[in-house]
Amino acid sequence: VPSSEFELLAALRDRLDGDGPGIPLGVGDDAAVIHIAGARVAIAVDAVVVGVHADLRTTSYADLGWRALAVNLSDLAAIGARPVAAVVALARPRGTLDDDVMAIYRGLRAAADDFGVVVVGGDTVTADVLSVTVTLVGEAPAEPLRRDAAVVGDAVVLVGDVGLAGVALAAARAGATGLLDEYPRVGSAHRRPRPLVAEGVALAEGGAHACIDVSDGLGRDLGHIAAASGVGIVVDRLTVAQDVATVAARVGVDAMDLAIGGGDDYALAATIPADRVDAVVAATGGRVIGAVVAGSGVTLVVDGESRDVTHAGWEHGG
Amino acid sequence: VPSSEFELLAALRDRLDGDGPGIPLGVGDDAAVIHIAGARVAIAVDAVVVGVHADLRTTSYADLGWRALAVNLSDLAAIGARPVAAVVALARPRGTLDDDVMAIYRGLRAAADDFGVVVVGGDTVTADVLSVTVTLVGEAPAEPLRRDAAVVGDAVVLVGDVGLAGVALAAARAGATGLLDEYPRVGSAHRRPRPLVAEGVALAEGGAHACIDVSDGLGRDLGHIAAASGVGIVVDRLTVAQDVATVAARVGVDAMDLAIGGGDDYALAATIPADRVDAVVAATGGRVIGAVVAGSGVTLVVDGESRDVTHAGWEHGG
Repeated sequence: VPSSEFELLAALRDRLDGDGPGIPLGVGDDAAVIHIAGARVAIAVDAVVVGVHADLRTTSYADLGWRALAVNLSDLAAIGARPVAAVVALARPRGTLDDDVMAIYRGLRAAADDFGVVVVGGDTVTADVLSVTVTLVGEAPAEPLRRDAAVVGDAVVLVGDVGLAGVALAAARAGATGLLDEYPRVGSAHRRPRPLVAEGVALAEGGAHACIDVSDGLGRDLGHIAAASGVGIVVDRLTVAQDVATVAARVGVDAMDLAIGGGDDYALAATIPADRVDAVVAATGGRVIGAVVAGSGVTLVVDGESRDVTHAGWEHGG
Repeated sequence: VPSSEFELLAALRDRLDGDGPGIPLGVGDDAAVIHIAGARVAIAVDAVVVGVHADLRTTSYADLGWRALAVNLSDLAAIGARPVAAVVALARPRGTLDDDVMAIYRGLRAAADDFGVVVVGGDTVTADVLSVTVTLVGEAPAEPLRRDAAVVGDAVVLVGDVGLAGVALAAARAGATGLLDEYPRVGSAHRRPRPLVAEGVALAEGGAHACIDVSDGLGRDLGHIAAASGVGIVVDRLTVAQDVATVAARVGVDAMDLAIGGGDDYALAATIPADRVDAVVAATGGRVIGAVVAGSGVTLVVDGESRDVTHAGWEHGG
């Protein structure tokens, strides 16, 4: 859930419904699972707010629509669910051009088509700030992946790359948009990030223990797993992809900092029991970056130096 | 869907998915129905935006939370679905007090408890305007009620009262809040309106043809049924409840105008084949107010005078 205020909602857990009969997952995981007429229904909601999660100087309306669905697809991926259908609540300031609203829906629809999701309805209201809130429902696996299921001795597997979105945003803000064309994975991470839907399903089928989608920074998101599971995590094999390193160098930002603390990556971080690591890595294209240990917090080890990155993450600013 | 801009979304129907395999209802009805692992899942989304749908001078934060769920419960009732679970997307301006946010959730939770719904998660973001967007999922009946299923010869049955919310708002705006206490149905309609969930299920089980929840004004909402079904509707037996009439007289507003065109009522209007009218009326507490006829539009007949009320409705202002 890419929200700087998720903590508030988590604090309200007592006032909401958490785990319980018929509710395998509740507040605090990326998505919830409920039972309807015998089916396990996964449900996630995320709002993309202009000025908070997106900047229209560097993001087109169509890409905004894409992202509004993509963040929810990533939430469902994080529990291993297959997406089925979405509804949209669009808030538009007076004076927003219909063409721009159409572009938002076009981008959203493109993502829906790519991932086999139907958009079945929605609501449009007038507001002071443009925002797109998508609710996505799907089919949850028998054992949805959770944040609180990491076990000491698990390997930590990263599926997808971190730092791509961070260097892309840095390039876009620096006006170096040519880099986004030159390095297509970086450009795609900024414009039309691809949530790892099939990979999330494979993680669940492969017997992963804990999982989270890396949207607020790898350090912080692994920190959520560590805290929820009552364990520590050591990340001692994190590498930075070549294109991330190159773009970072050309824009003048630190690639490792963005890999561990940049936001809006659509990677999945999971903990896997030792005897299943090889199979899961093969099925998902992931790689081992560390291990679950006794203790607490997240420790990053690079070149023999270690530092606490439990809170390294992305603050969604105004 | 209580939105003055629903028409825009309806105009986008071509860009979204409507009816089709696996999607019995799509954009344009109050809620959508999708199939997940063999279950018929109903889904509705509605945003309550302060300044558009609610005025904090006359609505408490807790009542705002109640209403945010209630509008969605009414959407599911309109297709005859049973509600199961909700997720919440809250947008709060910087500086909103945590206590006020808690009050919103408290009111939302009270409605959830009353109607047997679990709140399973949500997202909180910062925005310029306070809004609460709720997505509600539930179990749809085998034959969900639609807007486009009215048949010439059907009786038009109104379940619940219209005009209650209109006179309540008029009283609140006039500062005559004592009237809301003196006439509890009027006060409840303003503060904690009760969506007709069980009645919607009974309409579906009773074999109703078309149905809509009356949120934008009875004239306009019946107009949606007439347009979608390609029929006309004559309302010649609409009466105003005694408490609506009394409060209207004391505040100096026209009760029949508010009954036909006031907003935010949580009534259900359905068309029923003649041979089932008595049973449906008995099961729902509704009453016959008119009939489906050949033609188009909605005609109100009062004291022998008839007028076109197809567009009589509530404009959600700024």
